[in-house]
Amino acid sequence: MRIAGIDAARQYVPLEIRFRGQEIGSAYESDVSAVFVSKSEEKRVSGFYDGNGEYAVRFMPSYPEEYKYEITGKSLSAPVSGSFAAKPKVEGFHGVARANGFHFAYSDGVPLRPLGTTAYAFALQPRERVEETFRSLESAPFNKIRFCVFPKHYIHNLKAPFAYPFVGSAAPESADFVWYGGETNFASLGNRFDFSAPNPAYFERLDECILRLMELGIEADLILFHPYDRWGFSNMPHETDIAYVKYAVARFSAFPNVWWSLANEYDLMPQKSVADWDDIGETIESCDAYGHLRSIHNCIPLYDFSRPWVTHCSIQRVDLYKTTELADEFRERWNKPVVFDEIAYEGDIDQGWGALTAEELVRRFWEAATRGAYATHGETFDVPSDVLWWSHGGTLHGESPARLAFLRDVLALAPACGLGAYVKKGWAETAVSDEDGSESFILVYYGFNRYSARDFHLGSGRYSVEILDTWNMTRENAGVRSGDFRLKLPAKPYIAVLLRKE
Amino acid sequence: MRIAGIDAARQYVPLEIRFRGQEIGSAYESDVSAVFVSKSEEKRVSGFYDGNGEYAVRFMPSYPEEYKYEITGKSLSAPVSGSFAAKPKVEGFHGVARANGFHFAYSDGVPLRPLGTTAYAFALQPRERVEETFRSLESAPFNKIRFCVFPKHYIHNLKAPFAYPFVGSAAPESADFVWYGGETNFASLGNRFDFSAPNPAYFERLDECILRLMELGIEADLILFHPYDRWGFSNMPHETDIAYVKYAVARFSAFPNVWWSLANEYDLMPQKSVADWDDIGETIESCDAYGHLRSIHNCIPLYDFSRPWVTHCSIQRVDLYKTTELADEFRERWNKPVVFDEIAYEGDIDQGWGALTAEELVRRFWEAATRGAYATHGETFDVPSDVLWWSHGGTLHGESPARLAFLRDVLALAPACGLGAYVKKGWAETAVSDEDGSESFILVYYGFNRYSARDFHLGSGRYSVEILDTWNMTRENAGVRSGDFRLKLPAKPYIAVLLRKE
Repeated sequence: MRIAGIDAARQYVPLEIRFRGQEIGSAYESDVSAVFVSKSEEKRVSGFYDGNGEYAVRFMPSYPEEYKYEITGKSLSAPVSGSFAAKPKVEGFHGVARANGFHFAYSDGVPLRPLGTTAYAFALQPRERVEETFRSLESAPFNKIRFCVFPKHYIHNLKAPFAYPFVGSAAPESADFVWYGGETNFASLGNRFDFSAPNPAYFERLDECILRLMELGIEADLILFHPYDRWGFSNMPHETDIAYVKYAVARFSAFPNVWWSLANEYDLMPQKSVADWDDIGETIESCDAYGHLRSIHNCIPLYDFSRPWVTHCSIQRVDLYKTTELADEFRERWNKPVVFDEIAYEGDIDQGWGALTAEELVRRFWEAATRGAYATHGETFDVPSDVLWWSHGGTLHGESPARLAFLRDVLALAPACGLGAYVKKGWAETAVSDEDGSESFILVYYGFNRYSARDFHLGSGRYSVEILDTWNMTRENAGVRSGDFRLKLPAKPYIAVLLRKE
Repeated sequence: MRIAGIDAARQYVPLEIRFRGQEIGSAYESDVSAVFVSKSEEKRVSGFYDGNGEYAVRFMPSYPEEYKYEITGKSLSAPVSGSFAAKPKVEGFHGVARANGFHFAYSDGVPLRPLGTTAYAFALQPRERVEETFRSLESAPFNKIRFCVFPKHYIHNLKAPFAYPFVGSAAPESADFVWYGGETNFASLGNRFDFSAPNPAYFERLDECILRLMELGIEADLILFHPYDRWGFSNMPHETDIAYVKYAVARFSAFPNVWWSLANEYDLMPQKSVADWDDIGETIESCDAYGHLRSIHNCIPLYDFSRPWVTHCSIQRVDLYKTTELADEFRERWNKPVVFDEIAYEGDIDQGWGALTAEELVRRFWEAATRGAYATHGETFDVPSDVLWWSHGGTLHGESPARLAFLRDVLALAPACGLGAYVKKGWAETAVSDEDGSESFILVYYGFNRYSARDFHLGSGRYSVEILDTWNMTRENAGVRSGDFRLKLPAKPYIAVLLRKE
């Protein structure tokens, strides 16, 4: 899959203009930028150097309008300019997701309810594995996937990636996992990388993956830094980090489905200070003409999500027992959308973060959803091939995805204004109602409780009532009810009640 | 069953001396007291007036020795004195339970690991129900039961008790549950009670129940006050509360198995201040010659268990999701034994506190046990007869008691010094080792995690290893191991590993 040229320009679809210029040693020396102007918008974006004297500028038209552009830069012998007409958006393309109160909406106003999965290194696997992953994603319910730009060195992740992000050569594969702290001398391990020379072949793979995710309607929650490293990509000088981030923005920001996740587990990289992270976040905020979503993910201490550059909370659970149930606290604390991006994974490996039953993972999703928050899936089954979805992608083995599809379908019944006015409905149950408090849509979840009945007090409205078995994925019609009534329930865990005003 | 007379005096068994004296209007006017002296102890205890000019003094010999006693009081025409020989204790009798570090031990040093249940009003039910309850307790694993002195007015508890604790007459039974706050004018509801005149027939029932529990080796966790009231017993003047409490101590403290629970949900009785509760606790501490265990149970805010009169923490869960997992925090905070006396019940009723699966309740017990704390069971099945074990006793219907017996049997394998040196063994798992840190007994629990394997690092000791399925109640021998090794596990929830030094 290639990015469209200007002849195929279309609203909400990235296009690319490629041209030749001066050969430069470091892509970070490029000063190529472009201005795109239409009736309704004017955007300045950076181009990037793609090696061998070739430059590219990428742009996503937000309007189905006539555009003019001009590309300038010292590396060019003369400015490049032109014009094109962007055709109207086609079905399934909604533009860029942005925060909308406690929720998300695309450029065209369509709400996005993130239902994420995690496959940290899927884009860097051998070709056949990448194809297998995309086949899996086609039939999976997920509309967001978290993955890393840089390769991963961790348990189950000891093989070399398909290529390296920078020109150079890597230390040999290690047979055992060794944790290299941030201050390790990675060169002394045998690595020889020029961190100022991005490897175009590597980044083309990421281009391809992000584009293919876009075609599937999946947001690419792109992790810019992470600590699971044996090559030194987590330990570049701060100026190099900033240059790399600017390159990533120049390269990827025209893809409507990109989210910027500054880090997986920022706090495991003590070599970067909070001031460094803020600088990275503010750099992205100022360079990214599209205002893609920005956050940063913790191992233990949550980042201070009140920072202005942070658009939403990206949370790894802070407690082993109580995870998404903390959504209301976090909403209140930061007044931003809350996404639980790591709440342990469905699986059976030997790790505390990777041995949840599907029942428990799905329960955590419902606890999030009925508090007006979002959660992210992952799968860690110790299949003989040592291919774990959580990192490599491949094939989904778990029982949760089908249940998460059921949750997605139930949430899709909510009015377009979105879900989110979290109301504590009673004891050990949670509910979301309409955002505006009108309560035309009420979804109550009982979690691990096993009620034979619950009392409802609905006032004068008439509601169609359904009893949902969130595990067995059934919806039972319980009639039209109003006022005070007692609803008989099946005395099983994982039951929800959906009430919709007639 | 009657209390022994002095002719049948025995170590760790209560005896009673009854005699006639002046008829008095209020039992609270009695000033009868007695001194018991043997070679090893001297105890002063209060007697009590049991109506119709009859008085009683109760005493539990702590030693198999010759005792002399003298009973005095203005109500007596002359002191009553005498002597007896207490025979040595018989099997199953260990004296009074007291706090021992984070744990409990009887007078004779035998450790007590409380495994409680709850049947708040069982003693006040019709005779046949009481008999049914005792038949159930005979084959149940519980060695402690929480129940109330005063009758209970609450959902499922609207029928009148078999009798009333004070002379007088009660308002008629109500068909619907009404919550009467503490400041209600209970007389205006139609109640006519003389709170200074305990009803002997009522207290004899309690005597009988406590004695029968003693015979079964079950501690009687006696709740002196509670807010679920339509008669005014929760709203007596403070001086009357104190007089009642002194009466209870005089009447019950010779029973070795009594624990004093000042309240169920003290905070739902705003008519009593913290100073009142402290006064009640200190009164018991000063009157009770045996030093029975003393605590107080909350609805929402925990009591300040650091008060000197409090011997252990009696906790209702403070969070709906995280209950016994908080044991380590509470141990650290109060440095006293931690008993989770209310963590929701196995059942299926329409209440958030009464709709747990057995799996979840048993999990909470294991989380407590492997943190060196204790928990209390209850059952709330909406059986057609409206007899719920949680309050009425009757018959146990749940799946948890058999599993709790399994837990009890596993804990009984621990060395006599007790369990309790809580060690966080890893990620999402808990373990207790020996108290003295020698790690001859290690019990690791994995809760809802589903591991296919875990790594152990045991040093040079040789351990016999067993894999416990705490739900299916099986113990699988996994051989003798030492040093570093990987243990294959069955990839199911509710697994524990027991390691005992050879």
